[in-house]
Amino acid sequence: MKRPTIRDVAEKSGYSIATVSMALSKKDSSIPQRTKDVIATAARALGYRPNRLAVSLLTKKSMTLGLIIPDNGNMFFAELSKAVESSARGAGYNLIYGNTDNDPERDIDYIGMFIDRQVDGIVFARSPSTSETDAGILRLIRGASIPFVMIDRSFPETTSPTVLLDHFKGGRLATQHLIENGHRRIGCFTGPPQLFSSIERLEGYRSALSEAGIPFDESLLFEGNYQMGKEREAFRHFMEKKVSAVFSFNDFMALGLYREAKKAKISIPDDLSILGFDDIQVGDLMDPPLTTVHQPIAEIGKRTVEILLQLLDKDGKTPPPSRTAFEPTLVIRESVKDISALTTSRRACNRVYGED
Amino acid sequence: MKRPTIRDVAEKSGYSIATVSMALSKKDSSIPQRTKDVIATAARALGYRPNRLAVSLLTKKSMTLGLIIPDNGNMFFAELSKAVESSARGAGYNLIYGNTDNDPERDIDYIGMFIDRQVDGIVFARSPSTSETDAGILRLIRGASIPFVMIDRSFPETTSPTVLLDHFKGGRLATQHLIENGHRRIGCFTGPPQLFSSIERLEGYRSALSEAGIPFDESLLFEGNYQMGKEREAFRHFMEKKVSAVFSFNDFMALGLYREAKKAKISIPDDLSILGFDDIQVGDLMDPPLTTVHQPIAEIGKRTVEILLQLLDKDGKTPPPSRTAFEPTLVIRESVKDISALTTSRRACNRVYGED
Repeated sequence: MKRPTIRDVAEKSGYSIATVSMALSKKDSSIPQRTKDVIATAARALGYRPNRLAVSLLTKKSMTLGLIIPDNGNMFFAELSKAVESSARGAGYNLIYGNTDNDPERDIDYIGMFIDRQVDGIVFARSPSTSETDAGILRLIRGASIPFVMIDRSFPETTSPTVLLDHFKGGRLATQHLIENGHRRIGCFTGPPQLFSSIERLEGYRSALSEAGIPFDESLLFEGNYQMGKEREAFRHFMEKKVSAVFSFNDFMALGLYREAKKAKISIPDDLSILGFDDIQVGDLMDPPLTTVHQPIAEIGKRTVEILLQLLDKDGKTPPPSRTAFEPTLVIRESVKDISALTTSRRACNRVYGED
Repeated sequence: MKRPTIRDVAEKSGYSIATVSMALSKKDSSIPQRTKDVIATAARALGYRPNRLAVSLLTKKSMTLGLIIPDNGNMFFAELSKAVESSARGAGYNLIYGNTDNDPERDIDYIGMFIDRQVDGIVFARSPSTSETDAGILRLIRGASIPFVMIDRSFPETTSPTVLLDHFKGGRLATQHLIENGHRRIGCFTGPPQLFSSIERLEGYRSALSEAGIPFDESLLFEGNYQMGKEREAFRHFMEKKVSAVFSFNDFMALGLYREAKKAKISIPDDLSILGFDDIQVGDLMDPPLTTVHQPIAEIGKRTVEILLQLLDKDGKTPPPSRTAFEPTLVIRESVKDISALTTSRRACNRVYGED
């Protein structure tokens, strides 16, 4: 069976090809609504779609955007892609996804594939990369005749606009909250060290420590990858290091720590405080509800698409900003325990016994 | 800058085009590993990819599969797509996604787009459809020269293989567990009534009730859509109907009920028992941990890809089974309260006062 054409829709609906064409192009308002409805019904029943290739050749637009994300299983990216998609759809674009599982070779694969398949623009949340794969990705981006917008993770070597959270402030905010609650041995479950977001959050952590006069201790860090899988090793590390709190660089890895704590019968927050990052939807339903740094995920997704559309608009006068950073906020729930009284009394005790 | 060619890789690596071609095609084992490494490094640094269009024309394969899912924000589908992707990748295929948000017109859009862009096969988790959109989708599937495999949700009018859970058994298992725990007024937070999965789970519910001699009461049902958004109305309905337990047709909607219960200061399971379906990863980290029907998500994804690959193998002798149904199992956690003692004593009481 061949693909239904406008001729088939005309036959089925009983209208002329010219009328059908006008009705479906939505351009001619002189056609009565009833006629349009009949034609639309016939088109749907036949599975008729305008020949996109022909449309593309004419308008040079495929009305499709590509989105490359590193981990579809992480609710942060699932929510972010829903936001991107819903904005894209609002503007009449379909969205196709590629999930790279944090593998930069797959970044190269998907960018190439999306360019080959003529998407109009690409929203790109990169993987942690090496200088080699970086060079390959850069070459593809520079060689492409379509715009890119970087989301959540920047790619400083490109001129593409970037939309993200102020990760540094987020890291500071998280650490300050833990310090205010009396924590001094604060473990850090980081992201990949090549990623700007992880570097910045760590800088925020260091800045807050230094401000509070707490020396930075590298042995309290554990390198995560923003994904599941390292939580067991990380949890063991934090237990050995006798931290009283862990700042997890995303909520998804914090959930992993919850699971490990549960297995080990370690109570959150009585035995260990945990603070996350992202504010994914399930955070407030956890046991205990997760204290975290909020990212305005829906707004980030929306702004990203707006900027991409600005780039797609060849007649647009003003170029979009090269960097859009959103402000993080703290969402205080129940996973951080205030141990300042404890700390104070221990200090007093130490003073008495001459250990401070 | 134009796309890097095999000639560029040859220049950068210092080897001949013939050697590069052989090294990259992975077919010639006579080339020393060191040479292969140098060439691979050069190819990566340049962002070189084999010209897929040329490869496609030669092999008639794009080495890409399409996946259409109804809600990427639902962790069940996020986990399912990760499973499909990882199997596809294991077999050398890239996977591109379309998310339909349960809108059948977008099913039509994505199927058309994937066919136009020459994917080799499609894994399809359909939206709840109308007879009109059904006709359109069917026409596309029948007209396509590529294989489809239906996943999670069947499309009985097609001849495409289907891979899913035995939803009927799952519904029965869930309801039986609630009945065994003394519940008789059991609310049902269903899926869309057009979907086979929802119809079957509801049949399972009815069958378990009937077996226990509990009359079916339609007013205890509330129609959900497997997505977020209806939980507030649903929760209010179940409270008004004074149910002691709710069987939620998926975990994602159960999380919505958790949120509503929390707002209303209704304790789960003391005031209301909740039982879910799917067994998404966060279920055991919830407060309280969610009792649910387990779907072997990873296996379902894996089998689906195996069947699609069987269909893609033109030399394959045996056709794949038309229907593969996995067995559900019950995962008992802490969201269902045993009220049988309560029920028994109330019955005894009623007997004494002549109300039973």
